[in-house]
Amino acid sequence: MAVKVAILGACGVLGQRFVQMLKNHPRMDVAALVDIYPGKKYEEVTDWGHGGGFDENIPEYAANMKICSVEDIERDIPLVFSGLPPKIAGPIEEDLAKKGHIVVSKARDHRLEDDVPLIIPEVNPEHLDLLEKQRARRRWDGAIVTAPNCSTSILVLPLKPIFDNFGLERIYIATMQAISGAGYPGVPSLDILDNVIPYIGGEEEKLNNESKKILGSIGQPADYKVAAYCCRVHVMDGHMEAIFVKTKQKFDVGEVKSLMKKFPGTGLYTGPEHPIIIMDESNRPQTRLDRYAGKGKSPYTRGMSITVGRLKNNDVKGLSFIALGHNTIRGGAGEAVLIGELLDIKRLL
Amino acid sequence: MAVKVAILGACGVLGQRFVQMLKNHPRMDVAALVDIYPGKKYEEVTDWGHGGGFDENIPEYAANMKICSVEDIERDIPLVFSGLPPKIAGPIEEDLAKKGHIVVSKARDHRLEDDVPLIIPEVNPEHLDLLEKQRARRRWDGAIVTAPNCSTSILVLPLKPIFDNFGLERIYIATMQAISGAGYPGVPSLDILDNVIPYIGGEEEKLNNESKKILGSIGQPADYKVAAYCCRVHVMDGHMEAIFVKTKQKFDVGEVKSLMKKFPGTGLYTGPEHPIIIMDESNRPQTRLDRYAGKGKSPYTRGMSITVGRLKNNDVKGLSFIALGHNTIRGGAGEAVLIGELLDIKRLL
Amino acid sequence: MAVKVAILGACGVLGQRFVQMLKNHPRMDVAALVDIYPGKKYEEVTDWGHGGGFDENIPEYAANMKICSVEDIERDIPLVFSGLPPKIAGPIEEDLAKKGHIVVSKARDHRLEDDVPLIIPEVNPEHLDLLEKQRARRRWDGAIVTAPNCSTSILVLPLKPIFDNFGLERIYIATMQAISGAGYPGVPSLDILDNVIPYIGGEEEKLNNESKKILGSIGQPADYKVAAYCCRVHVMDGHMEAIFVKTKQKFDVGEVKSLMKKFPGTGLYTGPEHPIIIMDESNRPQTRLDRYAGKGKSPYTRGMSITVGRLKNNDVKGLSFIALGHNTIRGGAGEAVLIGELLDIKRLL
Amino acid sequence: MAVKVAILGACGVLGQRFVQMLKNHPRMDVAALVDIYPGKKYEEVTDWGHGGGFDENIPEYAANMKICSVEDIERDIPLVFSGLPPKIAGPIEEDLAKKGHIVVSKARDHRLEDDVPLIIPEVNPEHLDLLEKQRARRRWDGAIVTAPNCSTSILVLPLKPIFDNFGLERIYIATMQAISGAGYPGVPSLDILDNVIPYIGGEEEKLNNESKKILGSIGQPADYKVAAYCCRVHVMDGHMEAIFVKTKQKFDVGEVKSLMKKFPGTGLYTGPEHPIIIMDESNRPQTRLDRYAGKGKSPYTRGMSITVGRLKNNDVKGLSFIALGHNTIRGGAGEAVLIGELLDIKRLL
Repeated sequence: MAVKVAILGACGVLGQRFVQMLKNHPRMDVAALVDIYPGKKYEEVTDWGHGGGFDENIPEYAANMKICSVEDIERDIPLVFSGLPPKIAGPIEEDLAKKGHIVVSKARDHRLEDDVPLIIPEVNPEHLDLLEKQRARRRWDGAIVTAPNCSTSILVLPLKPIFDNFGLERIYIATMQAISGAGYPGVPSLDILDNVIPYIGGEEEKLNNESKKILGSIGQPADYKVAAYCCRVHVMDGHMEAIFVKTKQKFDVGEVKSLMKKFPGTGLYTGPEHPIIIMDESNRPQTRLDRYAGKGKSPYTRGMSITVGRLKNNDVKGLSFIALGHNTIRGGAGEAVLIGELLDIKRLL
Repeated sequence: MAVKVAILGACGVLGQRFVQMLKNHPRMDVAALVDIYPGKKYEEVTDWGHGGGFDENIPEYAANMKICSVEDIERDIPLVFSGLPPKIAGPIEEDLAKKGHIVVSKARDHRLEDDVPLIIPEVNPEHLDLLEKQRARRRWDGAIVTAPNCSTSILVLPLKPIFDNFGLERIYIATMQAISGAGYPGVPSLDILDNVIPYIGGEEEKLNNESKKILGSIGQPADYKVAAYCCRVHVMDGHMEAIFVKTKQKFDVGEVKSLMKKFPGTGLYTGPEHPIIIMDESNRPQTRLDRYAGKGKSPYTRGMSITVGRLKNNDVKGLSFIALGHNTIRGGAGEAVLIGELLDIKRLL
Repeated sequence: MAVKVAILGACGVLGQRFVQMLKNHPRMDVAALVDIYPGKKYEEVTDWGHGGGFDENIPEYAANMKICSVEDIERDIPLVFSGLPPKIAGPIEEDLAKKGHIVVSKARDHRLEDDVPLIIPEVNPEHLDLLEKQRARRRWDGAIVTAPNCSTSILVLPLKPIFDNFGLERIYIATMQAISGAGYPGVPSLDILDNVIPYIGGEEEKLNNESKKILGSIGQPADYKVAAYCCRVHVMDGHMEAIFVKTKQKFDVGEVKSLMKKFPGTGLYTGPEHPIIIMDESNRPQTRLDRYAGKGKSPYTRGMSITVGRLKNNDVKGLSFIALGHNTIRGGAGEAVLIGELLDIKRLL
Repeated sequence: MAVKVAILGACGVLGQRFVQMLKNHPRMDVAALVDIYPGKKYEEVTDWGHGGGFDENIPEYAANMKICSVEDIERDIPLVFSGLPPKIAGPIEEDLAKKGHIVVSKARDHRLEDDVPLIIPEVNPEHLDLLEKQRARRRWDGAIVTAPNCSTSILVLPLKPIFDNFGLERIYIATMQAISGAGYPGVPSLDILDNVIPYIGGEEEKLNNESKKILGSIGQPADYKVAAYCCRVHVMDGHMEAIFVKTKQKFDVGEVKSLMKKFPGTGLYTGPEHPIIIMDESNRPQTRLDRYAGKGKSPYTRGMSITVGRLKNNDVKGLSFIALGHNTIRGGAGEAVLIGELLDIKRLL
């Protein structure tokens, strides 16, 4: 039997991705679309596709659903996906967890709390063990599980096999991030046409704190150093990252490639067989051409892999590469759905 | 009395900048516009402004000039600016040097040759001493002097005070470069709309080799290591660079800022008083807003400074910052004109 | 049994669309990919997706096919789709027709010849009767059938029910056309970033001549007047047209809408059920949101409908509307494939 | 002695243009910058240049001025330029007029009122006679004078000589308008990247009503019919319009060109010698290349002319052309400043 799910912020950029990715999902059944227009039909109040890269219409299952408010989420909906903006998300998610729902959130509000798992299913599924601690301490029937910030997901997936095999000492990153990362209305067109903005508030700290929590063990963050510049460029979807790392041990580029290629998927419905795809062409990955790479078991799960290219050994223990991922899919709704599937298969719902 | 100059490749993106920057120049007099349409009027065959950011008409002095061929450059024109494409430039420039002209070239063909000065006037004017060696060895009446690649200029200017005061061990760079850097027709619009291309052929090697030649002493390149990714983004003009350096000695960010602010200009006509401009706003420099920063003594010399922002101390001996410069002005025609002025004032013409 | 087909210009923008749209086609089997790299594998020499809006990889069936030359097209391939550039197309298509192939061409070279059908399957399928005349006169075993220019397709489909029901006296059109319409490399990015170019060579004449040939009867073009400006705007795919018409008889906007909505499809595999889709929202159709509207019987046939919006009665007998279509699908490969299907079902292959 | 002026909405897109265009103005002295941050320095609260196309810094005269509130505008400031948003503008402008100031407004609120002049200085300066009626009726010491909507200015200037010489019966217009026309933050980047939006609220009615009021005589609007589609395209500044007109009398295209070329300027400081510039190249005007065409007596008045190209006679009494103008200069602050200068020279201040 399918699991009933609710989507918070269903009309926004992330919410729309949730609606699209859950279309025809064999295990999840969208039972509630939550947003600030309770009572209205979803298709009436949703500017479908303004958030970039949606070529199809609103899925039929959602078009005529009535938007509801948080209070309307029924007790029999165990799983809630949150695409709410930061600060608004925090208290609402806590309330829902208190009432017994498992909230999988894309908001930053709870990510760094000690007893809240911050999960990339292929990287640190074992961090879900934190849920026991969370429940014990907070005395909630439900729970909060978080997915990392988009730029963190795209960084950490390819770092994982490097971290495990050669250790990490130092990371330098420059990102080139899409406008959809700022939500809607988000970035004014007057600000970004013919421009690069070398700053996205809070983003550089997230790359540091979140990646260490994910790559570390529970309660023990990884201990490398990070220096990062997060830049906004004029693309719709897809964050590119130029990543330079200093490893603890020596490595061979061929070996790194091979480890990345073999890096295993989760086998879950929305997860791709190869979470990391290596491209050997000298000018790839490119944002527009590769952001939809990798899919799970349905066409609605496209964009779940990170493509990696231009791998270079630039020093003793110095490795660098370009990574690209879809910020509202792998770095957004897709990551959360994958976490939901992980919770489901681990019987944690 | 003004110095007569010729411009090679006068109709192209760089050539147009030369024509614009030499308007009303008090010491230089454009006497020959050289391109592949000899006999035609300049304004007839030049798509003025297709190379970005030109808001004004073709300067009157040039509009009606007849294009000439290389063979037509008169003996009494001591100075030749070359905006020719690579490979084509090489032999033509040699021929002109043999005939007694001083060629200041923006092409890469001769940059790394032992006896050819590669000059940023504020950084290594003393490298012009190589000219003696060049003449002795090649037995030319004229000479070839080169200006660095656009991304190198933008990197090296802010590195210079760091290199001089704290030493350089390691540099990591990710660039976000403008489409005008590829000339005209250059980058097809189908390739760059909604896209980032993380590769520009030969560019990463130039950042390495050229910067070391410039920051080193004659015959002795500097010895730090460089790792770089050069990316094409969808902006008209202006290259942004995210730069992470490991210094040899400890530094204080405030001291670095102060050294950059005080870094002296040349006092030459086209050179800005402050070749490096520090911005303290958290989201600056931005490509569209800051690429025209800094000018010499006329409005036609706008875009000659490098703006630097987001300076951070991210580790012991770890410094990082964002640098931005105009690729066809400071990193292009402007640099060459400044070299010409340096040659003039040093009585080397 | 499936019909074998060849694609001319298979590596270009149009050719790639042919390859994509013929994937899994139940009646057509791509037997030859023709381009200027004979002997190479298709995936080796094709920059898949540079022509915009391709999110998927090269279809498996084509990836490993060897490119062949025109001479290699076997006798047993009855149908040839031509995505060749103008002027090059003409003689090659004639040769193939002489040899017995039926060529369906997207090139302009033969479109206006007396005995060459110019077809939009939903509009003037009866014009295929011209083939008899063509064969009689030219003594060819094969034949040439042409599809109109992209902007013509997008104009004529919504005009057809107006023409049939109220007559046409006068048409004023301003188009806003995508960069993919110029092929690859096509429009230089320096020319179109932050720009509109109000001219596309030959395009305005095509809107006039081609639309009249299609809407007229054989040998008798329709007789309204056309005034048009064709403009290039900065979008990847999708031509928008602002169309003002003066009809011969009075009309009611509601009636026009109803006629457009009911305008029948062909029932063919690649043809949409509703070739014209009416949008009632005040700000639709929009290029990015609506260019993929309408599909035939497979997902690879998306983009085959024209969306029409903002219908207004602005004068006695004065009607205006906005029309949008995908230039390389409905106005490109899709139109040609649909013609191929029409030939097939009419047993003309 | 210079006239003191105040600028309402000084920090916005239009306000910044006012600040730039009044730099070094020989007759006007900016005495008050009014916006919603009273007490702050202008440079502290103004994102200079986000509104597009500003390459220079905030003019020195304004940088350190303190923002003031409407209430702070001193009695001795006779002239107030209003760049306020619609609806907010209306009552504020009335209050100021009551208090004795002459308000020249770019807001739509009062444009169509019977006793309010709607002025393009080259077209209908005599409409200022309405001021007497306005004062008599409203018993104000001051007055309100309005400038038309940006797209109206760009339409009406080239229409004027046609209207005067051949009469106008019918106009069809399709506009391609810049994002800066929507102010800041204005158009979200997610809405306009790779897109055309064929609707701008209220714009089409303005083209109709405002153009007729301007071209008519006082109290008697011109009586032609207008059909228009106003589209938003992805350019920073510059509105292009494809204009088809039906005249009352026959004309010759050469005569039209000649009338446009000879159409006289005002001789005022900010007004160009040739308000209409004819381009004969087949692919001009282009938005990016020509939006800054035409200037008055200082470089800060660039962008005051309308460029017209592609003039065609497409029918008996059928004329069409492409017109382009800078929406925040000729269609914005520049028009208002020019009206201010007209009031000054007519001793109406």
